[in-house]
Amino acid sequence: MTTHTTNDKAVVLVSGGLDSATTLAIAKSQGYACYALSFDYGQRHRVELQAARRVTDSIGIVEHKFIHLNLDSIGGSALTDSQIQVPTSGLSDQIPVTYVPARNSVFLTLALGWAEVLSAYHLFIGVNAIDYSGYPDCRPEFIAAFEQMANLATKAGVEGHHFKVHTPLIHLTKAQIIQEGLRLGVDYSLTISCYQPTPSGKACSVCDACRLRADGFQAYENSINTETKA
Amino acid sequence: MTTHTTNDKAVVLVSGGLDSATTLAIAKSQGYACYALSFDYGQRHRVELQAARRVTDSIGIVEHKFIHLNLDSIGGSALTDSQIQVPTSGLSDQIPVTYVPARNSVFLTLALGWAEVLSAYHLFIGVNAIDYSGYPDCRPEFIAAFEQMANLATKAGVEGHHFKVHTPLIHLTKAQIIQEGLRLGVDYSLTISCYQPTPSGKACSVCDACRLRADGFQAYENSINTETKA
Repeated sequence: MTTHTTNDKAVVLVSGGLDSATTLAIAKSQGYACYALSFDYGQRHRVELQAARRVTDSIGIVEHKFIHLNLDSIGGSALTDSQIQVPTSGLSDQIPVTYVPARNSVFLTLALGWAEVLSAYHLFIGVNAIDYSGYPDCRPEFIAAFEQMANLATKAGVEGHHFKVHTPLIHLTKAQIIQEGLRLGVDYSLTISCYQPTPSGKACSVCDACRLRADGFQAYENSINTETKA
Repeated sequence: MTTHTTNDKAVVLVSGGLDSATTLAIAKSQGYACYALSFDYGQRHRVELQAARRVTDSIGIVEHKFIHLNLDSIGGSALTDSQIQVPTSGLSDQIPVTYVPARNSVFLTLALGWAEVLSAYHLFIGVNAIDYSGYPDCRPEFIAAFEQMANLATKAGVEGHHFKVHTPLIHLTKAQIIQEGLRLGVDYSLTISCYQPTPSGKACSVCDACRLRADGFQAYENSINTETKA
């Protein structure tokens, strides 16, 4: 894996899924000293936390912190309320019930808090606004507004430091994300994307996350085959 | 206590201190159906959570939710790291070590998540930018940036609802806050402001929060005496 030597610290959100694993690999390839942050927030697919640990062990980081918070006490999402079914009939053009209210805002503000303690002014999040479920907190305009808020919220911001939120995947297709990850040596067998895996980590193959992942690998394979044929 | 009948729902951050008790009383007096939110975030003055419960019992709310999250695992503040001493020599013009990195951002994003689940579009927070410790996340410019972010972060925002962050104390002196609270019937003996109280809830009287509170009551008393003499 290519490494630069900026030695700047970065806090990277790592869920254990395909996108965040790629994001971590990109941050590392850009020379950042990476501090991984994962959340045990009462998600039904908590097995992803084991995947997060495998991913950071594999890619290599300075520290991996897990924060516990009971978003399931708030509910309002199929991912945090077992009474709400995870949709399995394919992507729609509506924001789906797997949307967790304010999740990325919560995760990014906690990342911001840790970043400030570390004197790390770079946050990385693997949001994607192309092959995605339509979550509002994955859009570039949200990220820009968050960044502005972060620099007003913090002592470091007042003192003239600038927090930057890096979203290296935001304009990539899922196939392009996979291509970049493979180029950087990401082992995707360590990751899990499914919203409702079995306790042992077997994916359901029919939820939106499974479909986006499978379509991404298919599109990546097609692109390789096209290149080979050309 | 005056009550209007808007019947709109509001999520109110309640710490158990003087400011948030007054804020809750104001929200209630404006006719909101109040949902109180408190945080057990590893603060050394966790006894304030009992005060929060007393305050909401006294003023009257629809529901009181407590969210646990281990901000002490992040540290970086005298309030969450027992290795860092709470300053007791009086207010300075620096942002003090009691500043908890990104605390209000974290609290407000969690309030936002709950608000979205409740279809509540009003958030109340008792920040104050006059008699305060200089925390950056108490300033009007932070609140405005947060509001903008909140409306881009959420499904409700996308669907045309507008989240508003109410800060009824932001331009009041501590004496004016007390005056308003007393007018609304707040029982301040139920509240605690101290950063390092004894386990039984006895205030230290020398931390910034104790000083601001005592100075506020003194100023309020002086203003009454002046009015009486006039």
